Amino acid sequence: MATRSDKAESRTRGSIRDALLDAASALMREQDKIDIGIVEIAARAGVNHGMIRYYFGDKEGMLAALLDRDVLRAIGQLDALFRLPVTPTERMRIHLEGIVDTYYRIPYLNRLIQYMVRDAEPERVRHIGDELLKKIAGAQARMIEEGIAAGEFHPVDPKLFYFNTIGAADGLYSNRLTLQVVFQGKPHADDDLHARYRQHTVETLLAGLVKNYQP
Amino acid sequence: MATRSDKAESRTRGSIRDALLDAASALMREQDKIDIGIVEIAARAGVNHGMIRYYFGDKEGMLAALLDRDVLRAIGQLDALFRLPVTPTERMRIHLEGIVDTYYRIPYLNRLIQYMVRDAEPERVRHIGDELLKKIAGAQARMIEEGIAAGEFHPVDPKLFYFNTIGAADGLYSNRLTLQVVFQGKPHADDDLHARYRQHTVETLLAGLVKNYQP
Repeated sequence: MATRSDKAESRTRGSIRDALLDAASALMREQDKIDIGIVEIAARAGVNHGMIRYYFGDKEGMLAALLDRDVLRAIGQLDALFRLPVTPTERMRIHLEGIVDTYYRIPYLNRLIQYMVRDAEPERVRHIGDELLKKIAGAQARMIEEGIAAGEFHPVDPKLFYFNTIGAADGLYSNRLTLQVVFQGKPHADDDLHARYRQHTVETLLAGLVKNYQP
Repeated sequence: MATRSDKAESRTRGSIRDALLDAASALMREQDKIDIGIVEIAARAGVNHGMIRYYFGDKEGMLAALLDRDVLRAIGQLDALFRLPVTPTERMRIHLEGIVDTYYRIPYLNRLIQYMVRDAEPERVRHIGDELLKKIAGAQARMIEEGIAAGEFHPVDPKLFYFNTIGAADGLYSNRLTLQVVFQGKPHADDDLHARYRQHTVETLLAGLVKNYQP
């Protein structure tokens, strides 16, 4: 029978790195917190925890890599979205559905950003601000400007819309114990509740943005 | 010159208790986190940290008392709101403005609830669920039912509306470092930004809820 370290040795460099990021992500989702120990993360990935130092330098480096992976995927989707030949309202709808999907998949996202922006090295904070968050916020602001120019949107402040969006999208997934305690629900939103929450959230945000909005 | 302990001894029982709660609240706001040491809280209040054990049993007891104080105030406001002779739309507007004001005043509220509901003793979790959160969510659901019955509101699911509300209301205040890093803003929302965020958030939530809503 193959031991865990045999298994690890048979992996390629990229797959061990990915396995560590997958393990960190899964544990943060399951335990509903950011602060997971490196020994536990390595054990989940089936590798020695020295691998974290080897691939990422330290735990903060691993969290930075995880945030990069999660957010760069979303930025890639935004680039594709701008190439779609749709109205500003439709583009915004697709964008907002994507944001709610992101928080369903990565419910720790805002907390990971808060954790990194508060505690990480200045160069990492600059990277997160300039290369990740400003890209998302800037793309959303560009969509809003297009919709205003086309006469479809009310003239809203993109900054206020951005914080409404990330707050409302996150509301269900970051308060999962409220769901359990107050509504006798499951501790996790399931696919059905997520689909209903996404529709409700996107309709609400569009109703506030689009002139004479009809669902 | 009076020393800190002279100052403490001249206080009444209630005022020391309140001073500890005020100190914990102020430090959680300033440091943007829940996990503040009891020595630091006692020092800010100008008393020995043994006072925390005396008044609250332990730190968890102090946090539970702080949550009680913050949320019971909001519940008292809701009772008064139901006695106001206004339309369902106006009642909901006043309620939503009050929620955004609450998160501006207490930006750590969702995080304190998450912390307590995850880590506190079962009896405390039951109290938070039944005596605090269900009261707020139940009052909001009653407002929604009144508005639907009066023909003013779309038939929305109160659970989805509740999580949109607490997420959107919290969005600006719990992501203050995003504000600083992405928008070159101050690390705290000031009164002017808060007033604009409240108006934007309340208009958006009402646009999604009220039939043919006109701002």
